[in-house]
Order: sequence, then structure tokens, then C-alpha cells
Amino acid sequence: MNKKELYQLIVKKKSFLCVGLDTHIDLIPKHLLKYPDPVFEFNKAIIDATIDIAMGYKPNLAFYESMGLKGWESLHKTMEYLGKFKGEVFTIADAKRGDIGNTSKMYAKAFFEQMDFDSVTVAPYMGEDSVKPFLEYKDKWVILLGLTSNKGSNDFQFLETGNGKLYEQVITKAQQWGSPNQLMFVVGATHPEEFKNIRSIAPDYFYLVPGIGAQGGDMDKICENGLNDQCGLIINSARNIIFASTGEDFAAAARESALKTKLEMGKFIPTFSHQ
Amino acid sequence: MNKKELYQLIVKKKSFLCVGLDTHIDLIPKHLLKYPDPVFEFNKAIIDATIDIAMGYKPNLAFYESMGLKGWESLHKTMEYLGKFKGEVFTIADAKRGDIGNTSKMYAKAFFEQMDFDSVTVAPYMGEDSVKPFLEYKDKWVILLGLTSNKGSNDFQFLETGNGKLYEQVITKAQQWGSPNQLMFVVGATHPEEFKNIRSIAPDYFYLVPGIGAQGGDMDKICENGLNDQCGLIINSARNIIFASTGEDFAAAARESALKTKLEMGKFIPTFSHQ
Repeated sequence: MNKKELYQLIVKKKSFLCVGLDTHIDLIPKHLLKYPDPVFEFNKAIIDATIDIAMGYKPNLAFYESMGLKGWESLHKTMEYLGKFKGEVFTIADAKRGDIGNTSKMYAKAFFEQMDFDSVTVAPYMGEDSVKPFLEYKDKWVILLGLTSNKGSNDFQFLETGNGKLYEQVITKAQQWGSPNQLMFVVGATHPEEFKNIRSIAPDYFYLVPGIGAQGGDMDKICENGLNDQCGLIINSARNIIFASTGEDFAAAARESALKTKLEMGKFIPTFSHQ
Repeated sequence: MNKKELYQLIVKKKSFLCVGLDTHIDLIPKHLLKYPDPVFEFNKAIIDATIDIAMGYKPNLAFYESMGLKGWESLHKTMEYLGKFKGEVFTIADAKRGDIGNTSKMYAKAFFEQMDFDSVTVAPYMGEDSVKPFLEYKDKWVILLGLTSNKGSNDFQFLETGNGKLYEQVITKAQQWGSPNQLMFVVGATHPEEFKNIRSIAPDYFYLVPGIGAQGGDMDKICENGLNDQCGLIINSARNIIFASTGEDFAAAARESALKTKLEMGKFIPTFSHQ
């Protein structure tokens, strides 16, 4: 999916909400355990219940990996299912990968060829050659960690480097590697005060924003400081939506929660969708 | 495996050589393709040919992930096979994972519970809560990226932070999170001039050293500057050993190459093994 298509998808759905599929067998409603692949059944139901509300889905790889081979099967099935909606949803492999060039190339194969994700999250510590192999795929995206949502983001990301903070250096330097048509940044919702500054450093890039909801981020502040004239934000919510209920009504509850979040962003849609 | 057992293993084998299992179906000898799981057959033959020479094995996760579900099966089988040598080898999941706390916890489950790796490589960018969940397992290890072997290590890791370079900050700060009994650092062989400095920052920690061989690192310099009185180094070699021959003699060629590398480190063994 290219940037124009991504933007059109957001305008059409009137939503820049991504649903995080942080799915684990121990966390899903018990009545699903009767199915051969309960995790897939859960994801399918969540997708069906939110497909007209969410512009994207973000499986969190760790949750699937923690279930071993069975988890990978559930992930593959989920991606196959999402493949039926190709062009209607943007998919993110939240994998935080990154290694030396010849190894990152293999990770790119995993997410862009073995599975058909539109994008993958990548960690910046190892620099350019760890990111480049992902950028070699047409219409696929790297979502590079900029400023993350967790407490540990304070350990290194705010270090002063003599030329801005580390996270600013990452966001500045990475723009030499990839254009706004193939590169985004992760910017956590828990740092709303940094958004204006970040938007000025990378005006035309999309940001993937985790940390709304369970982690405490504030939607309004993020939108006020982070939106640009092509939207420029993808806001992810996982637990608040997918585990809104752990009963048999989980899908309806997820829909309701997703709709609530979509409505919260509704007032911001006209700020860019006339473009 | 605890630190004492790791040290004893190295002394017993007179080797701090780890064999990198960067195995991919496209790279292995063609005659293996007749087996149901050629990648596992390859790994098994490499392990059998080097088990008395190598103190450890390091599957590179990217290579397995790039083969999809089949690759994960080969990895699981390889780990099951290595399980037969428990206590005789140290296993490293070279995965470069790291995410917010509740997600890193899931990655730890994947590598320490679903599979029985002794250690996993972790990226430091997201800070303490991204590393801690891995440290909660007794006798399991985190191998945190310090200074990596690739060209991109120059992009951020050498940035001056006002209190040392970024990689020095990472190695210094992480010592507050984990002791030398559960935490190691990745230090690439391509930076031999930095080893003395790094050894002074973290005198008692083990370093995992990639970059010997194909990437151009110099064994003698690394050993002279990096060894401590409990060895303190694990030197990884992958391509030079496992792809020493791509013919039917690949296992014998791997053994010969591993033996050569072990002999190169032989003169350094007496510097610590009397301890």
C-alpha cells in the first residue's frame, strides 16, 4: 500500500484507528477454546466486528511467539484472513526487529514474503544497514522506533547527543534512509508534549502511536499536536478494544469500544480530509 | 546454566567458540533436500560434527522466520536436539527482541519456556522495562546489544551523550538491571580498539562477540583486549564454519573450520583456565 492509498483509506473510513491484536490463548474468552484454533477464531471475530471502524490491524508478534508453533499458525491464518480485505486495511507486524544487513534481509522476507504484512516495526539501535533491507520492498513500510511509550523510553531515548536528543537524532537521520512514502516512526502517546517538536522534525511522515488507553495517552493532545494535512497519525489501541469484554459478547464489546475511540477522533477528521 | 557452569564448560572444552546456525534452505548442500526437514538435518550434522569443539550454538532467528512455519519447525527440532546435550552446550537465541514490559514478557516465554534457550539477545533502545522480564528467569541470560559489528553501529552507538558514548551508557546503565550472572553484552569483533575500554567499564561480564571471519574481526586482538580471568568472551562464527563447504563433505569441512578457530583461541586458554 502506498502513501496515497493509505491516506485515501483513512479518509474513506473516517478513521486512523488501528486495532492491536495482542492475542493470547490465556486471555481470550473461554467459550472459544472449543475451536481447533481459538486464537484465530478470536482474531477473526474481532476483525469482523471492527473492519468498518479500524483502518488497520497490528498483531503483536510476541504474543504469537509465546505460544510456540501453534501461535505462528494462528498468526499465519490471521494474515490470510486479513488478505481478503487487501486494500481495505493496513497491516502492521509489530515485531521490533533489526539486525546486521544480511540478517535484516531475512526478517524482511519473513514479514513481506512469507506473510503479506504492509509494514513492520524496526528498532534503530543498529543503524542504517539494519533498516535498509526492509525499505527495498515497493509499497511496504518500515515503522522505526522513535520515542516509545514505555517508562524505559527515559533510559536512553532522551539522552542529549550534542545535536538533539537521541530519539530526535534517530528521527532526523532515518529520513536520509527512507522517504515519507515508505518510512514511519513509532511515537508513544505517553509523550504528548513532544509531539509538536517531533512533527516539526519530520513534517510529512506518518507516526504510529501506541499508548492510548491502557498506557494512559491522551487522544486529544496527540491529535492537536501530531496531525498533519495528510492525517499523519495511526493510533493503535489493543487491550481496551480486544479485551473490552471477556465474555461471549467480546466481539460486540470490542466493536463498541473501537467505535467510541473512532468517535473521539471524529472531530479531527475534517482538519485533513478536505485535502 | 549459571555463570560458574558456563565457565566450567569453557574450561572443559578448552573453547569459547560458539557456532552460529544461520541456516537457510537456499544455502545448504543440495543433497540434503531429499530429507523431510533439510534445515534440521543440516543443523544436526553441524552439531554432531562440532559438539566437542564448540561450547555453544547460536541459531539466528531471522533465517528460520524467513522460511515461515517450516522454519519454526526446524528451529524447534534443532532446540530439541540440542536439549540432549543440556549442560554440555550453551544456547543463544539470536533474536534481538525487546518491547514494552508486558510484551517482552511474552518474548521471554517464547525463548525460555516454549523453547529451552539458555539466553536471548535483546536490543536496548526501549530501556529497562524492555529487558527486565528476560532477567526474571533463573539461570537464563540476557545478551544485550552493546556495540554491534555492523557498519550501522556508527550511526547511533558512538554518539557522545555528555557521559560517554551511547554504547558506553548502555553497558554502564544495564549493569544496574542485571548482574554478571545473568547479563552479557554483544560487542562486535570489528571494534577491537574499543575492547579494552569496554572491559574496564564491565570487568566481570561476558561478551558475545560476533564479526570474526566473514565480517573481518581479528581473533588475537579481541582476546588480548577482551578476556578476563573467567574467560569473559564467547566468540561466534557462523558462515566461515557452517558453509565451509557446500558439498556432501559440509559437516567434515565445518569441523575442520571450527577446529582451526578453536586452535587459534588455544593459546589464550591458559590465561584464565588455571583460575
